[in-house]
Amino acid sequence: MAKNEHRKEHDRLAEQRLTGLASELYSHFVDGRIPYVNMPSRTKNNIEFNEISDVWVYGGRESERSAKTVKGAFQLLKTSHVLDFLLNNHIGNNRGSTLRELYYISENWDIAKFKEQPESDRLIEDLEIISSLQREYFHMRPEEDGATLFGPLQLREETKRGDRDIHCQEDVGESGYQIPFNVENIDFIDHDAKFIIAIETGGMYARLIENGFDELNDAILVHLKGQPARSTRRMIKRMNEELGIPVVVFTDGDPWSYRIYASVAYGAIKSAHLSEFMATPAAKFVGVQPSDIVEYELSTDKLTDKDVDALRSELTDPRFETDYWKEQINLQLDIGKKAEQQAFAGKGLDFVTKTYLPDRLSDMGII
Amino acid sequence: MAKNEHRKEHDRLAEQRLTGLASELYSHFVDGRIPYVNMPSRTKNNIEFNEISDVWVYGGRESERSAKTVKGAFQLLKTSHVLDFLLNNHIGNNRGSTLRELYYISENWDIAKFKEQPESDRLIEDLEIISSLQREYFHMRPEEDGATLFGPLQLREETKRGDRDIHCQEDVGESGYQIPFNVENIDFIDHDAKFIIAIETGGMYARLIENGFDELNDAILVHLKGQPARSTRRMIKRMNEELGIPVVVFTDGDPWSYRIYASVAYGAIKSAHLSEFMATPAAKFVGVQPSDIVEYELSTDKLTDKDVDALRSELTDPRFETDYWKEQINLQLDIGKKAEQQAFAGKGLDFVTKTYLPDRLSDMGII
Repeated sequence: MAKNEHRKEHDRLAEQRLTGLASELYSHFVDGRIPYVNMPSRTKNNIEFNEISDVWVYGGRESERSAKTVKGAFQLLKTSHVLDFLLNNHIGNNRGSTLRELYYISENWDIAKFKEQPESDRLIEDLEIISSLQREYFHMRPEEDGATLFGPLQLREETKRGDRDIHCQEDVGESGYQIPFNVENIDFIDHDAKFIIAIETGGMYARLIENGFDELNDAILVHLKGQPARSTRRMIKRMNEELGIPVVVFTDGDPWSYRIYASVAYGAIKSAHLSEFMATPAAKFVGVQPSDIVEYELSTDKLTDKDVDALRSELTDPRFETDYWKEQINLQLDIGKKAEQQAFAGKGLDFVTKTYLPDRLSDMGII
Repeated sequence: MAKNEHRKEHDRLAEQRLTGLASELYSHFVDGRIPYVNMPSRTKNNIEFNEISDVWVYGGRESERSAKTVKGAFQLLKTSHVLDFLLNNHIGNNRGSTLRELYYISENWDIAKFKEQPESDRLIEDLEIISSLQREYFHMRPEEDGATLFGPLQLREETKRGDRDIHCQEDVGESGYQIPFNVENIDFIDHDAKFIIAIETGGMYARLIENGFDELNDAILVHLKGQPARSTRRMIKRMNEELGIPVVVFTDGDPWSYRIYASVAYGAIKSAHLSEFMATPAAKFVGVQPSDIVEYELSTDKLTDKDVDALRSELTDPRFETDYWKEQINLQLDIGKKAEQQAFAGKGLDFVTKTYLPDRLSDMGII
């Protein structure tokens, strides 16, 4: 798309849907009805794992927010103020702000002021659900940016200062390309990648860059930085879908890291309304697998009681309901041990890129 | 400097000093003496605030590590292994690793294996002190990278893939230039900056970028991301010293944020041996000042008991022993309140860049 086309398209959509909600409320007044908004019930039992699309989604239950109660009336008043702010300040003036700033901005709204930030955060989530748009379309920014990416990918980022053409190996420093908060502003220009490898720790990400893994294997390396930010997950999904390249996830070998993989692949319960934008169900888990701990005699730590509890709870988590995961998790409970991805350094600095990853990726049919 | 000149120069220095230590130990053996190493005592009472250079430094006390005891002998054995690894694998082969990887690598050293990571971490710090070089010269990498930077600065980063010329406004995306772990690989080519503003939160960093504060004021914006990483502090110091531009620090208005300022300006007790490389004593504090909370009637939170304790302890911290800080801290204890930098959003999205910062910076003589 040409310069600023993304923004125009996103702004148009956001404007349309937010204005739609405002005029719906307005028409209730005109018709002499008590204003209300219907939305999916956000209780845990209205969230289900969709076996077909492999992501968490809301079920059919709806709840009504109406001005029949004082609480409901206040909420709709606050909603109107937020709609006004998003439409006129953010979208109208091409500005943006953080959730924290929005909370402070409401100070000027008299009785519609938010009492605490979780209240305004939740309202923005409600608007995401009602509009079926991510909050980035309303120009809401996260507090911290996403992670970095390194590999044979050329992209164009539409910034407020103009378009930036960036090759993610040739035009960036040793740490790679910083993923911006709004990934929708990126166009993919060209790439030479066979797969994407998303990596939990900064140490392993730097190891793969140093060892030239991206060049030798035509791979795009993405640093997850622990539990990945929204923008990181969205970037992975977009590359997977739009460029048609497979995604593998490389983490430590412990229950918390399996959840990092699951959040990339399937999303999380608390952000079920975003699964469609953020989850990459095609993403595969490389390791560290419990069976790798045995096979490669990796340096390990003992599982703590919390680790054991987390593994047991994963045995009943629908995201891990496959023979593969049952076998791996049960094996880990048997051996009582966990290993970090950097433990491969015990076999030499090249083992992970010359032996482990090539073997695993070839077993998985990726290379 | 020309391509790879930085690396050559750093490698030469590191090689010289690490080899020097190794040959010293060797000469003890040859002379029939029990090998030992002398180094500054790292107890808290051997660390003092140097009033002249305004940073924390070690005092004159030394402690001897000698092979007279089994523990000391083991430590010198481990030191020899680490020296061998750093000289032959890291510097000799132009490789690097994280502290975590080094710990795993020691698995292959038989009885010289580290029992836990804090032991190997500490040994690397010892080598920093003995050699008067930062660990980056030994090619030791941190787990996570530094923060980002945005502004009228053109630099050249020497990477393993070749040199990269990057203008930190024109060649980067909306999130800016990612500071690499080893800032020594950067050459400053050109700049058009009158000052550097280091910012605690991502939300405020993005606010200043969106509002064009860097362009309007010829400012380099640096995101501190809370307590700044080594590379971020080193980058600030290098820009301040080599480009001769002043540094100001903009944080939340609470005792923990004042410590972020102090760590940029004066360093910290636990890294006294690095003050010379990392601290920027010329850095000035912009705010949020307790007096700003009063003057601008910012939205506040009450001080917690922990906040009050932290403020009291700052009253006896030599880094805050000035009339300015005593006045501000006492005022804050009086009013019993704290404010975040994003609270300025309550005055409108432009207040911080059009009113607050210009007023403060002009009071401070920066603009």
